[in-house]
Amino acid sequence: MPNPTAAILIIGDEILSGRTRDANMHYLAGELTRIGIDLKEVRVVSDDHDAIVTAVNALRAAYTHVFTSGGIGPTHDDITADAIAAAFGMELHVRDDARAILAAHYDRSGLDFNAARLRMARIPEGATLIENPISAAPGFSLDNVHVMAGVPSIFQAMVASLLPRLTGGEPLLSQTLRIGRGEGEIAEPLAALAAEFADLSFGSYPFIQNGAYGANIVIRGTDPGRIDAAISRLAGLFPAERA
Amino acid sequence: MPNPTAAILIIGDEILSGRTRDANMHYLAGELTRIGIDLKEVRVVSDDHDAIVTAVNALRAAYTHVFTSGGIGPTHDDITADAIAAAFGMELHVRDDARAILAAHYDRSGLDFNAARLRMARIPEGATLIENPISAAPGFSLDNVHVMAGVPSIFQAMVASLLPRLTGGEPLLSQTLRIGRGEGEIAEPLAALAAEFADLSFGSYPFIQNGAYGANIVIRGTDPGRIDAAISRLAGLFPAERA
Repeated sequence: MPNPTAAILIIGDEILSGRTRDANMHYLAGELTRIGIDLKEVRVVSDDHDAIVTAVNALRAAYTHVFTSGGIGPTHDDITADAIAAAFGMELHVRDDARAILAAHYDRSGLDFNAARLRMARIPEGATLIENPISAAPGFSLDNVHVMAGVPSIFQAMVASLLPRLTGGEPLLSQTLRIGRGEGEIAEPLAALAAEFADLSFGSYPFIQNGAYGANIVIRGTDPGRIDAAISRLAGLFPAERA
Repeated sequence: MPNPTAAILIIGDEILSGRTRDANMHYLAGELTRIGIDLKEVRVVSDDHDAIVTAVNALRAAYTHVFTSGGIGPTHDDITADAIAAAFGMELHVRDDARAILAAHYDRSGLDFNAARLRMARIPEGATLIENPISAAPGFSLDNVHVMAGVPSIFQAMVASLLPRLTGGEPLLSQTLRIGRGEGEIAEPLAALAAEFADLSFGSYPFIQNGAYGANIVIRGTDPGRIDAAISRLAGLFPAERA
């Protein structure tokens, strides 16, 4: 049987203007090759409703999978979810499950769950959420179209959530610990813990917030008990940091 | 009057497999923004005749300019020129002007002008050649489609040759000196010469051949006399290196 096929659709004026260099195409190309999905085409289009709708409809008819990157944040030019819904002839409303994920995230992090952020809970009916262990706002899979964020660390985390579902592999579970220290302080104990839990994968996604360094540590694996154990150990190393 | 529009078509299995990270999209995106051409879409397709023909025909109908990258080298999988000719319903044959450029280049460099290299002289009738100051084999413009090499240094040199023609600017002329020494040895005298000839641009494109380091120095400008003067001075600094 031939391999499944795929296309990537990258959405964003900042890529086409040359201001930002896209990193997601190369990353996902490598991941798809590794799991035996043949990437056949990539398109980059601007933050333009009709351009996105046209590209999505062309690509989803031609390939087994379509992966999109970009345009699902809280600002007015984040129109990807609207365009995907339009491409499928569907309406787009806030969905309770997505709203609950965001509400819990903003409650934990002490940020205001305002109207702009609520936009990110607008998910087509029937779509399956794609977990975002970095910043909570989920992506989604609607039929064969998989809609993900453009920020490379979030894109990569979403790809890790999504791919096992596509290949019929065991679902990859994750837990995230937000640590308010720079990676330089975290690195050594984290490496020791990762060596001890060699059956799990440890990702570190650094951030700067209000001028202070921090990192989200995402621990992934297929055994929820092992992930619980690893997160508990990590939380013990960095007390009172549990996100 | 609105800006002219453009698309980029990147051709190559090695990009889609994730083996190579494309650099040309980001480079050309920045150059087009600088000169006021609006990049609207990018596509990446594999080394597949029908995929290239379909993409070229869709893009050349939709945008003022189409820039292609990749697939014009000497090997069997370099099929871009064939596909472009097919997209225009034209035949493809060796053209005398392109053959003469390649013959002179291989004569100078002592390389065999074999059948594989002769493939690179296959240029559609009526197309305008795009100069390749690095490795001689030209690109070409056919109507609004501009066909260039995928190797980033050659792609960038071709873009520098091509863009002034598109914007109605004075044509940018160039001369190249091939120097059989590493860039570390060349850098200081080259920087001093570039400072002296501030009206010209100096590009250094390093290579390794038979284990030895070297660099092609490309001097560009609009005044042929100034370029002659700069090349003579450079040749005087590195005697017996004239390519």
